[in-house]
Amino acid sequence: MAPPPKNTNGLASQRHAGRRQVLAVIRKAGQIARIDIADRITGSPATVTAITAELLDEGLIEEHSPKTPPSSSPRGRPRVALKIRGDAHILAGIKVASHAVSLCFLDFEGRGRGEFETRMPRSALSTSEMVAFLHETLTKACIANGLSLDSLSGVGLGVAGIVDAPRGLVYWSPTLTERNAPLRDHLAEILPMPVFIDNDANLVAKAEQLFGKGQGVRDFIVVTIEQGVGMGIVIDDRIYRGTRGCGAEFGHTKVQLDGALCRCGQRGCLEAYVADYALLREAGTLNLPDAPHGQLDALFQAAKGGNETARSIFHRASRMFALGLANIINIFDPKLIILSGERMQFDYFYAQEVLDAVKTSVLQIDAPLPDIRIHKWGDLMWAKGAAAYAMEGVSDISVQEIGKNVG
Amino acid sequence: MAPPPKNTNGLASQRHAGRRQVLAVIRKAGQIARIDIADRITGSPATVTAITAELLDEGLIEEHSPKTPPSSSPRGRPRVALKIRGDAHILAGIKVASHAVSLCFLDFEGRGRGEFETRMPRSALSTSEMVAFLHETLTKACIANGLSLDSLSGVGLGVAGIVDAPRGLVYWSPTLTERNAPLRDHLAEILPMPVFIDNDANLVAKAEQLFGKGQGVRDFIVVTIEQGVGMGIVIDDRIYRGTRGCGAEFGHTKVQLDGALCRCGQRGCLEAYVADYALLREAGTLNLPDAPHGQLDALFQAAKGGNETARSIFHRASRMFALGLANIINIFDPKLIILSGERMQFDYFYAQEVLDAVKTSVLQIDAPLPDIRIHKWGDLMWAKGAAAYAMEGVSDISVQEIGKNVG
Repeated sequence: MAPPPKNTNGLASQRHAGRRQVLAVIRKAGQIARIDIADRITGSPATVTAITAELLDEGLIEEHSPKTPPSSSPRGRPRVALKIRGDAHILAGIKVASHAVSLCFLDFEGRGRGEFETRMPRSALSTSEMVAFLHETLTKACIANGLSLDSLSGVGLGVAGIVDAPRGLVYWSPTLTERNAPLRDHLAEILPMPVFIDNDANLVAKAEQLFGKGQGVRDFIVVTIEQGVGMGIVIDDRIYRGTRGCGAEFGHTKVQLDGALCRCGQRGCLEAYVADYALLREAGTLNLPDAPHGQLDALFQAAKGGNETARSIFHRASRMFALGLANIINIFDPKLIILSGERMQFDYFYAQEVLDAVKTSVLQIDAPLPDIRIHKWGDLMWAKGAAAYAMEGVSDISVQEIGKNVG
Repeated sequence: MAPPPKNTNGLASQRHAGRRQVLAVIRKAGQIARIDIADRITGSPATVTAITAELLDEGLIEEHSPKTPPSSSPRGRPRVALKIRGDAHILAGIKVASHAVSLCFLDFEGRGRGEFETRMPRSALSTSEMVAFLHETLTKACIANGLSLDSLSGVGLGVAGIVDAPRGLVYWSPTLTERNAPLRDHLAEILPMPVFIDNDANLVAKAEQLFGKGQGVRDFIVVTIEQGVGMGIVIDDRIYRGTRGCGAEFGHTKVQLDGALCRCGQRGCLEAYVADYALLREAGTLNLPDAPHGQLDALFQAAKGGNETARSIFHRASRMFALGLANIINIFDPKLIILSGERMQFDYFYAQEVLDAVKTSVLQIDAPLPDIRIHKWGDLMWAKGAAAYAMEGVSDISVQEIGKNVG
């Protein structure tokens, strides 16, 4: 049989995958010698050497000689390690919350290069208003941190709601007055760098994976409670997004047939029992005195002070939350669940009895339960996740550029 | 810098992965020319030629010249295609149901080579009784189909309950009187071929993927209703099993806080509303006359005949089922949900109003809903899934054997 003709497409995609793999290995390791990269991927040492040469040429990585020789060096002299070159790219990450916008800059190594916070003019904007507002905010943030807009290689943006990330489409968001907004494309018209949009809970999962409690865990789930209830699912080291980009809608799973009214218009959603608006709705019945930190804090203080009705509001919310979490464990059997977001400060949500209720609502087998960890962090960590998302996107583009140049 | 030393481990695992990939491509295609294999994997044409030579030597594949030249052939003469060699292996698949055991034999191409059905002596056996019973059943099935036990390359076994497939451990099964049964290892002591055990719903998903409505769909979910409620999750072409092997426990997700008592001992599980025992429990209150096909059928006939109480039993079950399905869609956003299992004959479960209830309980976006399809099939299809599971396991072992021989 005659050998088949040269299959250049297959080879090019193989090389492309190899470059991505090598870059990812270097990023994960921090610093790593070429010989150790070859151990961790499915390419030959010669391929690794060729790929690292390309990445060095492109300025994406750099050589790094440690000052003290590592004890593992067989020849007693320092090995040349490779690392990501921080200056290769600067990325912006933006989290749009109900009234505030948080922004951070990261370099290509993931080091912070500045932060910025501002208020939204209103809680919801039209698509064109949002585009203008984000452009203005990004420009101000650059000035405040001594950067120019042109120096940014990419922008990551996290919004609450239902986002089709691959298409850059926002089906619905509480921060937008319009449905089905092609937000990424509209931003791309005004911004000189690539823009990457995702659901904000997915970006918290990304931040946990790269900088937080999800490091080194292949399968984990992040649950956030703020204005709504969000979820990010990491399976096999990747964010699971579903077919239409609207998976992981934990907040709208039903915990009660014909139950409480949700702001989505349906009844019995978990959000309708545990989100801010659900607690405030019941707090309204209580006629609490005005409080300096708002009605939600007043409700919390009343419960802590022994007000039985206030306690019952939190009690029901926490039981519904435990039921929802147990359902997630029964379905995914994850290694780790991370509870994140601002509301984690209300300790009723993660009080021992809530975690105990989760454990007794999970199918019982003679194996340890998943680890449930609390991670309190603010909007800037969400923004960091958005910047990390942009970093991944820009890495891919950079690697594809090499492919175009050297084949 | 000196080039790193030869990394033989990396190359061996790369070659191993390549062999698996080529075998999978040939299996999926049915018949395929070498040149077309190279287009579908990330290896070079030379590698494909070398690997197919190994697979031919090992007798796992064979050459096949079509009688009529395909129109796509550029030279106007028939290409030599490669196909799986059916005689390479014979696999048995066994489904253990509440009282019956179904068994089928498949060759390495997936063609049926015989079937067998028998009754269980009791609804639940001890581990040693189950091992003896399965050995006896397999022996009888071989004799009935003109096969010898020694001619089988592998056995796949599906049991209801909670199974850690990689470890071959049955945490709990309604068909076993003991918990934490190392069923695979016990069977391996008495059977001369490798044994592969999984939860039965996962094997339905495997059957749907290879022979049914899941063909060519990368992400889909199978829901089964029989004695219990089962779920199989396929993500990225693979069965998702969770960390401890007890994910996809859809039947024990809670649909009601402090709800109906489930046979797992907890309250409010979906199973406690829709499984056979849940319907029978409510039917008991009705005092239905004895029926030739059992109480469940009597209940169904009463509902069809206009008995309002009987109707309300099915009505509640179907609403709870719709709620549970909507939750799955909200979490996974799958492309396809397949409803399978014996109970699909009760049309209340898939009547239009149930599907409508699912659709109105799913988060509404301006994109088409997932496809929900009904697939009625019997225990023999489950057994076929079990045999297909064994086929995958035996393929892997065969490919590893090549690795040992040629490096």
